[in-house]
Amino acid sequence: MRALYWDGRQLAYDSAYSAPATDLQTVLVKVHLAGICSTDLQILKGYMGFTGVPGHEFVGQVSDGPGELVGQRVVGEINFACGRCEFCARGLGRHCPGRSVMGILNADGAFAEYLAVPVANLHRVPDNLTDEEAVFTEPLAAALEILDQVQVSPGDEILVVGDGKLGNLCAQALRLTGAKVTVLGKHRDKLNLVKRAGVRTVLLNDWQPRWFDIVVEAAGSASGFELALRAVRPRGTLVLKSTIAGNHQVSLAPLVVHEINVVGSRCGLFPPALEALLEKRVFVTPLIEKIYPLEEGIEAINHAGKSGARKVLLRP
Amino acid sequence: MRALYWDGRQLAYDSAYSAPATDLQTVLVKVHLAGICSTDLQILKGYMGFTGVPGHEFVGQVSDGPGELVGQRVVGEINFACGRCEFCARGLGRHCPGRSVMGILNADGAFAEYLAVPVANLHRVPDNLTDEEAVFTEPLAAALEILDQVQVSPGDEILVVGDGKLGNLCAQALRLTGAKVTVLGKHRDKLNLVKRAGVRTVLLNDWQPRWFDIVVEAAGSASGFELALRAVRPRGTLVLKSTIAGNHQVSLAPLVVHEINVVGSRCGLFPPALEALLEKRVFVTPLIEKIYPLEEGIEAINHAGKSGARKVLLRP
Repeated sequence: MRALYWDGRQLAYDSAYSAPATDLQTVLVKVHLAGICSTDLQILKGYMGFTGVPGHEFVGQVSDGPGELVGQRVVGEINFACGRCEFCARGLGRHCPGRSVMGILNADGAFAEYLAVPVANLHRVPDNLTDEEAVFTEPLAAALEILDQVQVSPGDEILVVGDGKLGNLCAQALRLTGAKVTVLGKHRDKLNLVKRAGVRTVLLNDWQPRWFDIVVEAAGSASGFELALRAVRPRGTLVLKSTIAGNHQVSLAPLVVHEINVVGSRCGLFPPALEALLEKRVFVTPLIEKIYPLEEGIEAINHAGKSGARKVLLRP
Repeated sequence: MRALYWDGRQLAYDSAYSAPATDLQTVLVKVHLAGICSTDLQILKGYMGFTGVPGHEFVGQVSDGPGELVGQRVVGEINFACGRCEFCARGLGRHCPGRSVMGILNADGAFAEYLAVPVANLHRVPDNLTDEEAVFTEPLAAALEILDQVQVSPGDEILVVGDGKLGNLCAQALRLTGAKVTVLGKHRDKLNLVKRAGVRTVLLNDWQPRWFDIVVEAAGSASGFELALRAVRPRGTLVLKSTIAGNHQVSLAPLVVHEINVVGSRCGLFPPALEALLEKRVFVTPLIEKIYPLEEGIEAINHAGKSGARKVLLRP
C-alpha cells in the first residue's frame, strides 16, 4: 500500500509499504482523510523517538474485520490500551502505561492508505457529518478534554494563548460553557477565524497584560508559556495544552507564591467531540488550509510547518 | 529596641533599632518566640529583594493597642492585606495584590523585640498551648493549606519529598485525612521524627521509584522537584510547597503527556492550625532544635542553615 514512512531521520513516500496486519480485536480502515498536527511535526524532529507511519487524526471506512463493521465510516481514538490495568478500569485507557499510540508510540499511523485500529477505539461517524468535519474529531476531543479536567464557571475570564488550530479549537470548546474567552495571537487572519464563535481576540502587539481566571497555553513555545504564566491570577489555573519537546528554563517560584494550578492536558474522549460537531456547536472546516494527495505528503508536511498555516490534510 | 536587620547584603544585630509605629488598625506585639524558616534563609540570599527585619513565624503578647487586646497572647497571619480588593472580598487576603508581607515584603518582621501587626491578622492563643507549640501555627497553617487546595481521598497514596520541618508538617497535615502518607528523605533521625504520626518513611538510598496519587515537593531543590514529578501517576497531583528561588531547567512535556495537575501552595489560614495544635492532632515540639536569644541571632541563622537542622527559634 501507499504510505509515508519516517525512519527516525527522514520522511519518505513509499508506494509499496506492507499493509498492516489485523487480528480479532483489530480492523483495517481505509483512510479517507488524515490531518497533520503540530505533534506530527515534532515527531519528525525526533519527539518520542518514533519510527513508522506517522499520523493520528483520521476519518476512514472499515475495509476488513467483523462483518457488522465493514463499510462503516469511522474515526478512532489514538491510544491503544491494554484494557486490563487500573487506568483502563477507570476509563483512562489514554493513560494505560502499556499503551501504544497511533503514529506516536509503537504503532503505525494514518498517513497511509490503510490503518489498523482496535475495534474498541472506533466510533461510527454519523451520516450527516462530512469527512472534512469528522477528521477534526481527534483535535476537538483534545480541546474538550480541558472541560473534563478543569471546572469552568460561566463568569470566568479565560485567555487562550495561541491562535493556531489548537488555540482555535480550545477557545471554541471553552466558549461552550458560556465563559468569556479571549484568544491572544500573532495572526490577524487566524484571529478573525475564531471571532464568529463569540470569542474576543487580541493581537500580540496590542496585548496589555492583565489577569485571567484560566489561561490555556496553546502556542507551543517557551515564550508563550511565560506569557501565559504571567496572565494567571493568584489561585487561577494554567492549562498546558501543547507538548513542548525539550527543556526550558522556568522559574517555579510564581506558581507557589500565587498558588497557581497547572493542568497538563492531552487527549480527550471522542463521543462529546462527535456530538459537538453534529450539533454544529463548533465550526471546523474554515480551519482547512489545503488537502494534498498522499503522494505529495512531504510537500504537505512542509506546508503544515509554515508559520501561519491552518490545518493541512492528506487524502490517501 | 533590639532587632536583627538585613540591609540587602548583610544581617546585623541592632540594639537600638526604632520600635515600629502603630495606628488604629495595628497593634504592637512583644515577641516571645520567633521561628527561622527556609524562606528566611532564602531572603538572606536576596529572595524578594527584601530589606528590613526578617521573620514571619512568631508568638507574642499585645503590648500596646486597643484596651481589650492588651496583654493577650497572640499569633498573627503574615499577609497584611488592603481589605478592599476582590481577593480580600473572597477571603483571599493572602493573595491581595496590594499586600505587604511580614518580614518578606515591605513590612518589618518578627526577629525583633517588638512587631507591628494589623488587628485583623491576630489570633488569640488558647491558654493551654505553650509558646513553643504556638510558634508553629504559621508553618502548620501553610501545611494545612494543601487540604484547602487539593481533594484528598482516604484511600490516596501520598508521597512527601523532603524530611525537613516543612515535609514533616505537610506529612502530618495530610495524614489527618486518613490517606496513606510516605515521607522520602535523606536523614534517618528526621524520618524517625515523623514516624509516630503514622507516616511511612523511606530513606533516599532505598528509594524504589513508583507512582503516587499525590506528591508533595517539600525538599526545596531542583533534584527534589525532578524526583517528585517522576513519582506522580498519570492524572495525579503534584503539590509545590517550597519556593525555589531562581530558574531551573525543567521539561514540561511530562506534565502534558501524563495530564498532571501541579498545585502551587503557600500560606494558609490560622484557625485550623491552632485547632489542630490544641487537639494535639499534630506534634510540633520535637521539631525544635534549639532556642537562641536574639543577641545570638546571627549564630542562630547559621545554625538553621546547616543541613539536617530542625527548627531554630529566637527568644527576643
